Amino acid sequence: MEKLLSDTIKAIPASYVAEILEAAADPGIISLAGGLPHPLSFPKEDLLASINRIIETDGDKVFQYSSTQGLPALREFIADRYNKKYNIGITADDILITSGSQQALDIISKSLTNKGDAVVVENPTYLAAIQIFAQYQPEFVTIDLNEEGPDFDQLEAAMKKNPKFIYLIPNFQNPTGLTYTKEARDKVYELIKGTDTFLIEDDPYGEIRYSGQPLPYIGMGRHENSIVLGTFSKTATPGMRIGFIICKNKEFMKALMVAKECADLHTNIFGQYMLADYVTHNDYDAHIERIVALYKQNAEAMVAAMEKYFPEEVTYTVPEGGMFLWVTFPEKVKAMKLAPKAIEKGVIFVPGDAFYVSIPEGAHTARLNYTNASLEKIDEGIKKLADAISEIMAE
Amino acid sequence: MEKLLSDTIKAIPASYVAEILEAAADPGIISLAGGLPHPLSFPKEDLLASINRIIETDGDKVFQYSSTQGLPALREFIADRYNKKYNIGITADDILITSGSQQALDIISKSLTNKGDAVVVENPTYLAAIQIFAQYQPEFVTIDLNEEGPDFDQLEAAMKKNPKFIYLIPNFQNPTGLTYTKEARDKVYELIKGTDTFLIEDDPYGEIRYSGQPLPYIGMGRHENSIVLGTFSKTATPGMRIGFIICKNKEFMKALMVAKECADLHTNIFGQYMLADYVTHNDYDAHIERIVALYKQNAEAMVAAMEKYFPEEVTYTVPEGGMFLWVTFPEKVKAMKLAPKAIEKGVIFVPGDAFYVSIPEGAHTARLNYTNASLEKIDEGIKKLADAISEIMAE
Repeated sequence: MEKLLSDTIKAIPASYVAEILEAAADPGIISLAGGLPHPLSFPKEDLLASINRIIETDGDKVFQYSSTQGLPALREFIADRYNKKYNIGITADDILITSGSQQALDIISKSLTNKGDAVVVENPTYLAAIQIFAQYQPEFVTIDLNEEGPDFDQLEAAMKKNPKFIYLIPNFQNPTGLTYTKEARDKVYELIKGTDTFLIEDDPYGEIRYSGQPLPYIGMGRHENSIVLGTFSKTATPGMRIGFIICKNKEFMKALMVAKECADLHTNIFGQYMLADYVTHNDYDAHIERIVALYKQNAEAMVAAMEKYFPEEVTYTVPEGGMFLWVTFPEKVKAMKLAPKAIEKGVIFVPGDAFYVSIPEGAHTARLNYTNASLEKIDEGIKKLADAISEIMAE
Repeated sequence: MEKLLSDTIKAIPASYVAEILEAAADPGIISLAGGLPHPLSFPKEDLLASINRIIETDGDKVFQYSSTQGLPALREFIADRYNKKYNIGITADDILITSGSQQALDIISKSLTNKGDAVVVENPTYLAAIQIFAQYQPEFVTIDLNEEGPDFDQLEAAMKKNPKFIYLIPNFQNPTGLTYTKEARDKVYELIKGTDTFLIEDDPYGEIRYSGQPLPYIGMGRHENSIVLGTFSKTATPGMRIGFIICKNKEFMKALMVAKECADLHTNIFGQYMLADYVTHNDYDAHIERIVALYKQNAEAMVAAMEKYFPEEVTYTVPEGGMFLWVTFPEKVKAMKLAPKAIEKGVIFVPGDAFYVSIPEGAHTARLNYTNASLEKIDEGIKKLADAISEIMAE
């Protein structure tokens, strides 16, 4: 079989996500893995009301083939919302609805990358992004992260390679939970200004901020080849797979539409009608506030539990929003060794290894999710994890 | 911009589909283009009943992230149905739910094709398949079609190139409406037997047969590297984008799941729950019979109108099922010249050119769709088209 497979498919590194989602489905194990939103974030009754309304009003159209770019009403809502919030001067034409942000990453990297092209990613970064980009066999250039933002020296050096694109998650980064400061954003802009490198700002969690102030995008509105990615997965429903690309470069938007057409013709239109109706007939911001309140409480509970149970050699980030925080163990505590011991004790997390392009010596870091478990389970899960850590430290 | 784009995206030939879907949306023009199912094929009330039931029963799960392979209940239904109908001995594990057949074509060709690999397609063939496969820069090898099936000499010669895959649409082919005979199927099997070439049998219309008997698949169940593609787009709703891959080669299924995960993580799970519930609580076959009855009537009306209005030099196929028929004009009547004249008169079709990998001299063929227009519009549309043909013939 191996000899029949394409280089594209063979270039994808092994995945941890599918296995994690499976283990997370075992109700006996406390999952601090995955990235599952809390069911509270699905406004079920309001969505059902919207479904009844769209079938009544739009009838056949919600079940029929539709256009590749996506439902105009939904794109108009997004453009309006982002203009009000970020003053980026976009129109509905600058938006392409995608089947989740996952598809956005696939069609963008497919449209830009030739084998060997330099592409810049954070170190660590979103594990699926690594897999998706790897398909097109780029030269990965990684830049480390600190509490303020990326390592500027590394970014400056990376820019000398004339990268096709830079992929950043400036808000509540996945996996670290870190957020770029305003100053770091401006500095990144200064380093890419005037180049034709695409800047992809992936922002799935931007709406989920529970402390501090919203910050402007780095490139959108001032760097021509700028892309912002958004999604309804964290604020309404991930099951419908509805995300979007914002891109004001008309020529590149045309290329993306061709790639999107090849990928799946269009994103399911039923879900697009449903969401467009939902945001029209409901107070979307009030709904998001409820999600934010819950996640804030959960994040605080996790930080408190870590404070209580973790050996003091273990450090962690304290996020201002989003769904994850990042734990750093003493070097001796390799995450891939810790994981099976933690599962034995009844808790699961994602080993840091999954988020690096390459980490031959093995990571001593972990991503923890706090949005899907109850307060009790968070406390219990962190306690179990602390036990597993202590055992390995004592070895 | 051009210099920033990947070879992959630049390899995609210009599309006709998006423009056609747009022109088809103009209510003033009779559309015999596109491939829109009739709204009768959407069981709206029953689907709404299913939606109410799944939200009641499965609650959060229909809105949450889900697994890459697709909903087990839906895969079990498909396996059971295909086993009963075609006796191919598959299980739910041999099925991968995709975001329409379009995505199936993308991830299969992506997983198999290196630049320059030979891939075999019918001539003419499904226009989106040409675009999708072209992304991965294969050497296209085309085989002509006749009333019985493919040209065997051409297929035999094509096999000498050791193609990665052969893409066929043996039932009510798109665009020609032709169906391979039982004998032709066996002959194709003999020509590929023992090779490791993948045989992709794309079967979106298989359920929509209105004369003759269902015929067995060519490869599934006897050629190891066999794939069958199916969809709910023609029998329930295309707007939900739910298709599926049947593949008994476990290793290749694993590769496809990796590609699928990169493409969009999973197909919208809401639609999968909806369809699984719908087929459980309704008589799906009775619903399909209603679609078949309507399309049969429409196809007969189109054939009758062509008989009545077309100059006798114009020939056409008479399909046993599906959604299309294929018209061949005298050589002088180039389809790309006819199309604007037809639109002027108020009717639109897809010029044959769109369905060839290459046809430098221009096609004198056209694909006509008969499933979406009323009987009156079919008669009127064919009359208008006949006028346009006659005018060009008289030039």
